[in-house]
Amino acid sequence: MKKTKLWQADDKQTLHPLVEKYTKGNDHELDQKLIGYDIQASKTHAQMLCSIGILNQHELELFDKAFDELLAKLHDGQFTLKADHEDGHTAIEQYLTEKLGDVGKKIHTGRSRNDQSLVMLRLYMKEKLEDIMNESHNVIKALNSLAREHALTPMPGYTHLQKAMPTTVGTWLDSFSEGFKDMNTLIANTKKILDQNPLGSAAGFGVSIQLDRESTTKALGFAVTQDNPMYCGLSRGLFELLAVQSLNPTMVLAGKLAQDILLFTTDEFGFFSLPSSFTTGSSIMPHKKNYDLFEIMRGQSHTFSGYIVQLQAIVSSIGSGYQRDLQLTKGVFIEAMEDAELTLKVLAVSIAEMTANVEKLQSAITKDMSSVEKINVLVYQGVPFRDAYRQVKSSLKID
Amino acid sequence: MKKTKLWQADDKQTLHPLVEKYTKGNDHELDQKLIGYDIQASKTHAQMLCSIGILNQHELELFDKAFDELLAKLHDGQFTLKADHEDGHTAIEQYLTEKLGDVGKKIHTGRSRNDQSLVMLRLYMKEKLEDIMNESHNVIKALNSLAREHALTPMPGYTHLQKAMPTTVGTWLDSFSEGFKDMNTLIANTKKILDQNPLGSAAGFGVSIQLDRESTTKALGFAVTQDNPMYCGLSRGLFELLAVQSLNPTMVLAGKLAQDILLFTTDEFGFFSLPSSFTTGSSIMPHKKNYDLFEIMRGQSHTFSGYIVQLQAIVSSIGSGYQRDLQLTKGVFIEAMEDAELTLKVLAVSIAEMTANVEKLQSAITKDMSSVEKINVLVYQGVPFRDAYRQVKSSLKID
Amino acid sequence: MKKTKLWQADDKQTLHPLVEKYTKGNDHELDQKLIGYDIQASKTHAQMLCSIGILNQHELELFDKAFDELLAKLHDGQFTLKADHEDGHTAIEQYLTEKLGDVGKKIHTGRSRNDQSLVMLRLYMKEKLEDIMNESHNVIKALNSLAREHALTPMPGYTHLQKAMPTTVGTWLDSFSEGFKDMNTLIANTKKILDQNPLGSAAGFGVSIQLDRESTTKALGFAVTQDNPMYCGLSRGLFELLAVQSLNPTMVLAGKLAQDILLFTTDEFGFFSLPSSFTTGSSIMPHKKNYDLFEIMRGQSHTFSGYIVQLQAIVSSIGSGYQRDLQLTKGVFIEAMEDAELTLKVLAVSIAEMTANVEKLQSAITKDMSSVEKINVLVYQGVPFRDAYRQVKSSLKID
Amino acid sequence: MKKTKLWQADDKQTLHPLVEKYTKGNDHELDQKLIGYDIQASKTHAQMLCSIGILNQHELELFDKAFDELLAKLHDGQFTLKADHEDGHTAIEQYLTEKLGDVGKKIHTGRSRNDQSLVMLRLYMKEKLEDIMNESHNVIKALNSLAREHALTPMPGYTHLQKAMPTTVGTWLDSFSEGFKDMNTLIANTKKILDQNPLGSAAGFGVSIQLDRESTTKALGFAVTQDNPMYCGLSRGLFELLAVQSLNPTMVLAGKLAQDILLFTTDEFGFFSLPSSFTTGSSIMPHKKNYDLFEIMRGQSHTFSGYIVQLQAIVSSIGSGYQRDLQLTKGVFIEAMEDAELTLKVLAVSIAEMTANVEKLQSAITKDMSSVEKINVLVYQGVPFRDAYRQVKSSLKID
Repeated sequence: MKKTKLWQADDKQTLHPLVEKYTKGNDHELDQKLIGYDIQASKTHAQMLCSIGILNQHELELFDKAFDELLAKLHDGQFTLKADHEDGHTAIEQYLTEKLGDVGKKIHTGRSRNDQSLVMLRLYMKEKLEDIMNESHNVIKALNSLAREHALTPMPGYTHLQKAMPTTVGTWLDSFSEGFKDMNTLIANTKKILDQNPLGSAAGFGVSIQLDRESTTKALGFAVTQDNPMYCGLSRGLFELLAVQSLNPTMVLAGKLAQDILLFTTDEFGFFSLPSSFTTGSSIMPHKKNYDLFEIMRGQSHTFSGYIVQLQAIVSSIGSGYQRDLQLTKGVFIEAMEDAELTLKVLAVSIAEMTANVEKLQSAITKDMSSVEKINVLVYQGVPFRDAYRQVKSSLKID
Repeated sequence: MKKTKLWQADDKQTLHPLVEKYTKGNDHELDQKLIGYDIQASKTHAQMLCSIGILNQHELELFDKAFDELLAKLHDGQFTLKADHEDGHTAIEQYLTEKLGDVGKKIHTGRSRNDQSLVMLRLYMKEKLEDIMNESHNVIKALNSLAREHALTPMPGYTHLQKAMPTTVGTWLDSFSEGFKDMNTLIANTKKILDQNPLGSAAGFGVSIQLDRESTTKALGFAVTQDNPMYCGLSRGLFELLAVQSLNPTMVLAGKLAQDILLFTTDEFGFFSLPSSFTTGSSIMPHKKNYDLFEIMRGQSHTFSGYIVQLQAIVSSIGSGYQRDLQLTKGVFIEAMEDAELTLKVLAVSIAEMTANVEKLQSAITKDMSSVEKINVLVYQGVPFRDAYRQVKSSLKID
Repeated sequence: MKKTKLWQADDKQTLHPLVEKYTKGNDHELDQKLIGYDIQASKTHAQMLCSIGILNQHELELFDKAFDELLAKLHDGQFTLKADHEDGHTAIEQYLTEKLGDVGKKIHTGRSRNDQSLVMLRLYMKEKLEDIMNESHNVIKALNSLAREHALTPMPGYTHLQKAMPTTVGTWLDSFSEGFKDMNTLIANTKKILDQNPLGSAAGFGVSIQLDRESTTKALGFAVTQDNPMYCGLSRGLFELLAVQSLNPTMVLAGKLAQDILLFTTDEFGFFSLPSSFTTGSSIMPHKKNYDLFEIMRGQSHTFSGYIVQLQAIVSSIGSGYQRDLQLTKGVFIEAMEDAELTLKVLAVSIAEMTANVEKLQSAITKDMSSVEKINVLVYQGVPFRDAYRQVKSSLKID
Repeated sequence: MKKTKLWQADDKQTLHPLVEKYTKGNDHELDQKLIGYDIQASKTHAQMLCSIGILNQHELELFDKAFDELLAKLHDGQFTLKADHEDGHTAIEQYLTEKLGDVGKKIHTGRSRNDQSLVMLRLYMKEKLEDIMNESHNVIKALNSLAREHALTPMPGYTHLQKAMPTTVGTWLDSFSEGFKDMNTLIANTKKILDQNPLGSAAGFGVSIQLDRESTTKALGFAVTQDNPMYCGLSRGLFELLAVQSLNPTMVLAGKLAQDILLFTTDEFGFFSLPSSFTTGSSIMPHKKNYDLFEIMRGQSHTFSGYIVQLQAIVSSIGSGYQRDLQLTKGVFIEAMEDAELTLKVLAVSIAEMTANVEKLQSAITKDMSSVEKINVLVYQGVPFRDAYRQVKSSLKID
């Protein structure tokens, strides 16, 4: 069946194939990940339309049944968006119209693809942020557990990549768990800010039909209704930026931890190791044991920055009112969410399998690392700090 | 007087001038903006050293007096960092040592330039975020006030830069005030996360002297002590990223509002104007009236993204433990804070002076913008939405 | 058949499934786009191995035949990489080994997946840059053609989005074609720089076998051999950055032109229009005619910046020697190349269909736009420029 | 003396002080670095105005003398832009008018601040790129010289930060010098592209006076005249992006080399060292020897990416015709140029002072690094590569 567009009155008007390809991009693949949320919100929308008299009870039952069938098909992998669907929103309306005839044509009453898209993304965003906080919590648990085991295992502390003062493996690991905890607070706070229902804002200017927005807010589990319809429009892309930003420091911490581990697993440092199920080999050098996973992790802390650039550049380049540039934020946003979730998952299982080479760690504590302690002994003897410093420094032979 | 470095035991060791220039950059100019916070924290540090018996009461009094003098000099513009000071921290110790002799040499007991720098930046950060929230609040008030005045003034709502549906000037302005409010919540939340005292973490590994960190936390007004000393180190740059990130959506909103105003003040749209004290002219075209300020504002919403890239790239490229790359975050961070503060200041005064051209706004509402209302009339008559849409669309002549 | 890894001596060693998923990402989908170049280079490698005596003539014939078959299958869509292939390189060796037995196991002699990957990407890069230059040339032709048609059609020139001085449609269009021409020179220059053969550098340190690198350079059509094997390794990601950078100003120009067209096709300006096969409608507002394609184009000029950030952050974060972070550059790089190519394709066909509304353009030239001419008349009469400026300005009534 | 603006007909019109501060930023400090080029181009402009009869010979002589005086004052530090000058262009005209009276008021004939700014930046850009290429050449010489000295000094080659195969110090250093050479070609090519004279394009739309643009092109040493006046305008910011982009891969290489050196100067690797005039100490740990300069270098390879983001976001967000956002590109551009120049200067002197620890390098070559050679011996005996690989791998004990 030829898929027409929702906005085509007839079949005469066809898009130039290059324009179609260009404006659509890989939208159908992205919508496949989101359409479950669209169906959920559409079902709630139908219930609201019934409560305000646009649909009668019988029509609502038809819709309810059709939506449940559609969700079932989706879960069974029988509902797949194709490149010739204009988008997921259209695919749903077409399914309903084919299934329910004239009744199906009523679903778009009082809404636009703008708020349909907004509410779908908002539901996805909330769920993903929750998932990611859970994964981060698992990382924290793994770090804490290894930190407890090595609370007293000595380890050289480095500044400028040079040995500075002694610390412990426990302190090192806990410094990261403290960071992940604080950054989880940031994610939780951000989630609260964006927990607003945009459904009912239509194309960003509301509709002349008196919708009951509070009822969809309640049914979909949002904290509040996003009242101003133009603010709903304004938040497209902006809330995605908010969500991605909130994950950024967590990704930075993952990258920094990865960087530490890569250094500490070199032959030269040799402080830690992971079992071979966490390392890879070389196609040409049979002796290699590579910690690739932490290289990918380090890399992803960098690609994340690019996502923020892309979201911000797109969003801040345009004024208010929907413009199609915003569609490009969808792919970037989903990629960022998925990267963050997988990174934390992998980090949690890796930390759990990390082994400390206690002997190597101990022998890496060199004598000159106690220079600050020597100063402090003099300080307690009444020598002013700076004089004590110079005295100890002169006793060391540094070229 | 020749300024030696704190870490030089004698004068023989001198840095290659290019290396000195390169590693220092414009640090002394930046430290000039921060040194007040450094003095404040140093004074508190001295009091704590006295409370744990490192300094006696007489020494503390000397310190207190010297710090108060130094602050007074700073406020009077008599204490200026020069390029040949290694940094602000060193300048303070040198001042104390010149002034107090051996007593002055005791100030660095139990601390490092690392935590000295951290606490100075943390105090600055908290104060600036507070200031910026206040400025944003002024923007919100200005928007609300103009919105109330024009609650019913009609205005075309645009999507894709094409006329879509009617809205009001009030709705448009309030959509931004809602956004600024939400983003102020983000700033406030972020400020709470970073409200942690790093003083006492020394070089990131603590010290063998038993400091009373809780007392400096209380005296400096921090919510909590940042206990893990390696987390203190880890948060250098990371908390700056947090702070700058928290301002980013506010800057994006300012940029979007600027973009709207630039469009709406063109001759072709003509919806709004500002008095000539807010516009500039041309050196060659005497008839020009340019809204440059909003162009700068739009531009700054874009430069902000670069700050985040810089902070993130620097911070996520290195593992734990202080590395000098982090010094580069200082300038970026301060610039971002200052840009955000000034942008909001200018925005608040500009909105307050904006005039709506009501006649032009009214006449811009064209007939075809009521097409959705026409559909809704049909919908109430029982015509399914999609059929009503096609019916109305066919009645319009769109090529 | 279970796919083992090239570096696994036996089947006992298996990667943790999360680590496998994480380190691989969507690599098999990317390699599908590149594997044709890998096969081409592998075939050339086999010929070289024969010429230096590693393979005999019979073995070479077997390889030649197998590679031709593989290419045919690839073109017919019968050779598809799956997620359980480690990568495209491995898939080729596995195909050869299944097909040719022990002979197949000889293909990896004197090379590593590092140089295999490098040469594959280098061939792709050269071809894509060539394609993109051609597309850009089509844009230039379309611009020139429309510019010739409207060489004398008047058009207001804008600065600060305010009417400044009169110009012509031809001048406006040609300003972009001049830009695209210069930027094509940049692409061509860049292509020359990266036209270097990395095959034979193995893992970045050469091999003890005496390869004939000049012969593969010649056979694969490279300008020179990239002699230093560590430079070959160093150029992974760096040359991708070079290539993407070279397209960046072209994308910026496309974005700026899109921005101009979006403004000039608003109802309020109304200077240009495109046929309905280049515009889209709204699902709710039947009267809308949206120029979405230029919004996507404007958006893509912004996402491009994110690609550069990602490439640079990944590449500049690591020292020399292959590290797995570099794998992440592959997807970014391919996406950038494809975006640029499609953007220019769409731009060329769009410009060709653009219609100027001559009447609207003419009537938009207002009287005050001639103020500079008035000044110049006075200048020719001997009035100093600045006095003439003030005189004309005073005669205009600007608030 | 009160500085009025060039575009103010009288003194009644004054900018709101916040708007003035905001739109000006630190422009006067930036213009101080550029104004020499502005004076040079202004002098040439006056000569051209005389050649076309706008100025008489006497007036030209007055101008020539005034410009020479101004240049002399500038070099002696007696001509300093203040915050209350609108910009450098205005300061020049004001100087001339104060000095020459009515004659001075003629200097702005046939130009605008737009092309005045463009030509000034273009001259600066060309000179700086030339300087930077020279600095890069010095880096190449230093690398080559050290490489020759250590052509045969063995060094472990690393992939994934794990020992891979043996290489030499010479090969490592030369891999970077090859890179810097190629990237210098990129800079040279880019400089050729932007070697175009924009003077005479006025506000981007030309002027009604018949200027002799070819004569200024020749006098200022440009390769060609940038004919299309709108292209001149379009190239503002875009050419700055071009220039900065061209330096980017050079900065990436500097960052990668810095990263290598930081690793190789750790206590654990210990391959190289620099004299104490290239390293710094700690304010608290007297034993520290830190290679800060390479940390700053690594950091600057990251900040560079932010400059590109800022330039691109600003430039690609606006259509054609000057808009004030472009002013923000000036500071970013100058900072990028200065960073690149200083980085290369420091790198050249540092490499020249680097000492290889030959003993440490030799002993770091471990036995398992010869595994590929062992395979190749088997390959020459006729064992297929992959079988030889598995055989050697089994003989190693890798967990």
